[in-house]
Amino acid sequence: MARHDRIERLQETMQDTDLDALWVHPAQDFRYLTGLAPIAMERLFGLVIPASGHTRLVVPLLSAEECSEIEGCEFFTWTDEQGPREAGVAALDGFSSLGMSAGTPLWAYETVRSAAPRLEVSVEPSLVSALRVVKDEDELTLMRAASKKTDGIADWIETLEPAGKTEAQVASQVVRRILELGMTPHTGAIVSTGANAAMPHYAGGDVEIASDAPLLVDFGGAVEGYWSDITRMYLPAETDDEVSAAYDVVVEASQAAFQKAGPGVTCGEVDAAARSVIANAGLGDRFIHRTGHGLGLEEHEAPFIRAGDRTELKPGNVFTIEPGVYLSGRFGLRFENVVVVSEQGVESLNESPVHHRLE
Amino acid sequence: MARHDRIERLQETMQDTDLDALWVHPAQDFRYLTGLAPIAMERLFGLVIPASGHTRLVVPLLSAEECSEIEGCEFFTWTDEQGPREAGVAALDGFSSLGMSAGTPLWAYETVRSAAPRLEVSVEPSLVSALRVVKDEDELTLMRAASKKTDGIADWIETLEPAGKTEAQVASQVVRRILELGMTPHTGAIVSTGANAAMPHYAGGDVEIASDAPLLVDFGGAVEGYWSDITRMYLPAETDDEVSAAYDVVVEASQAAFQKAGPGVTCGEVDAAARSVIANAGLGDRFIHRTGHGLGLEEHEAPFIRAGDRTELKPGNVFTIEPGVYLSGRFGLRFENVVVVSEQGVESLNESPVHHRLE
Repeated sequence: MARHDRIERLQETMQDTDLDALWVHPAQDFRYLTGLAPIAMERLFGLVIPASGHTRLVVPLLSAEECSEIEGCEFFTWTDEQGPREAGVAALDGFSSLGMSAGTPLWAYETVRSAAPRLEVSVEPSLVSALRVVKDEDELTLMRAASKKTDGIADWIETLEPAGKTEAQVASQVVRRILELGMTPHTGAIVSTGANAAMPHYAGGDVEIASDAPLLVDFGGAVEGYWSDITRMYLPAETDDEVSAAYDVVVEASQAAFQKAGPGVTCGEVDAAARSVIANAGLGDRFIHRTGHGLGLEEHEAPFIRAGDRTELKPGNVFTIEPGVYLSGRFGLRFENVVVVSEQGVESLNESPVHHRLE
Repeated sequence: MARHDRIERLQETMQDTDLDALWVHPAQDFRYLTGLAPIAMERLFGLVIPASGHTRLVVPLLSAEECSEIEGCEFFTWTDEQGPREAGVAALDGFSSLGMSAGTPLWAYETVRSAAPRLEVSVEPSLVSALRVVKDEDELTLMRAASKKTDGIADWIETLEPAGKTEAQVASQVVRRILELGMTPHTGAIVSTGANAAMPHYAGGDVEIASDAPLLVDFGGAVEGYWSDITRMYLPAETDDEVSAAYDVVVEASQAAFQKAGPGVTCGEVDAAARSVIANAGLGDRFIHRTGHGLGLEEHEAPFIRAGDRTELKPGNVFTIEPGVYLSGRFGLRFENVVVVSEQGVESLNESPVHHRLE
């Protein structure tokens, strides 16, 4: 879908709401609608999309030129000396209700509220997300490319002989490899040895990787903004029986979710498919997060594969399946693939094998 | 200042406000106060600091263990199945007014407001920033180390023979070098050839670097969270006289700001010192941004060196001096160093030379 069509589609969906306009903060929604990913930090910056008519852009002067390719858009620039208030007032003139991107920082919300005190401001009801959640063929091509490169890195990690290095050193190597392959990295990769992997979002790093404990590596890279996401375990040659058995359960849970998922199936049903395998193995209370999350321009986006979620999957949805078990102070295991919903079921974007060796 | 002292100092400053508590979203303020940089994305997560008494943490279950080192903190965990509402309600019990970090995403603000509808919620009045803006010796040691490594990279770029490569390829090399030196990179570096550098925050990349046009490179890396930030120009052997003259003006403006800055001087006075040099050279309308920004755990933070700002500098403030001139469609030039305010004036953290060659 071309950018311009995306904005028109968005304006159509706004007809079913009582919003006069949307404020899109420069982040992934902005990139989806304009193709641009400008640097936006502490300066007020937003694409204003009215329910009908042309778009407006509140933009710091220093970023105006690089946004000039947004077609048919009226610019409201401001300088560091002026501050953003007048540009905001002018750009929001004539609107009574405004929906702002959920990720807008609170200071920007307050700046808009103070510039237009009579405007009713709310979080926009996921209208852009509703478009983004169904990927078109062009988007899927980028996501397939990202996952393929990421599979290569997952396999290459085996060759690094990570034992003896620190977690941070291996994370740095993975991120550099992502860059070498022309992808944009997240600022870090999760690399956790032994008991550290019992913390699913472990952000540490100075610990030396043990040769006799499972190593978890979770990372991704973006191709033209579209992310991959993978987790693989690197197991020592002599793996403890309890770890091996638990890992088999995690992989089986992943396969159960994969088998279950498809168009018309709810996110909650996919979560339950994975969760019941782990519960039946007596590890239910060790699976301490949802089964997965959507992926696209954001690393975590809709749909969310969580217990009780009644959202029905649709062809073109892309999400992770990443069950895990976490035994505090002992070990953590996770296995993660990205899948796309097809007309029949789901297709995995990852082909990296289930088993990798630590040495 | 130890973490615990920071929280106590913050609680002291809260006595002068009518806030019962602060909500600190996991970002740089959180890292400053706890030493931790957990991954926080779409799950509600916040450190609640009451005006007196022990802290509370609203935390997704999967991130709880890695936060366990926060001393004397009461935890309110929630699971993906439960959702964050009950944990939020319990953690905010007893408060009437709450200040939230300026960078808190709007969805988190709305979640808190819906969990505690009678709570008066506002953006916290930069109380944490007021502590962070004066760096202690430990922080300065990290910032000096980051700037020193960054100087090395700025000089190393000359050896890359960037002409003929794309901007994105050189940006990737710079980011990989940042990682090799053990620093955390920003996701990108600004690398802009010729007329692209007329866009100060240019985020492009697929353009081949010309051998006969100025190249601008702006990047930084973090050591234990503390950033460097540098911009250097790489000029062709035969530089156009107009470009050379304009670059001399920019460097002179930088030196004027450097000479002016010191304790008791206002941010506006420092900005004016740089701006008047550029205005006197007839290029005033080409200097389209403020002179600089503070630096620390964030790449842009207080103080802001902008026209009319009456904030007085204090010893321990760290900020950039980065005047530039931008001629749309033709060229852009910027020169950026980081300085720290001493008892007498300012000291530069960067020693990389003023002149670099493109080839």
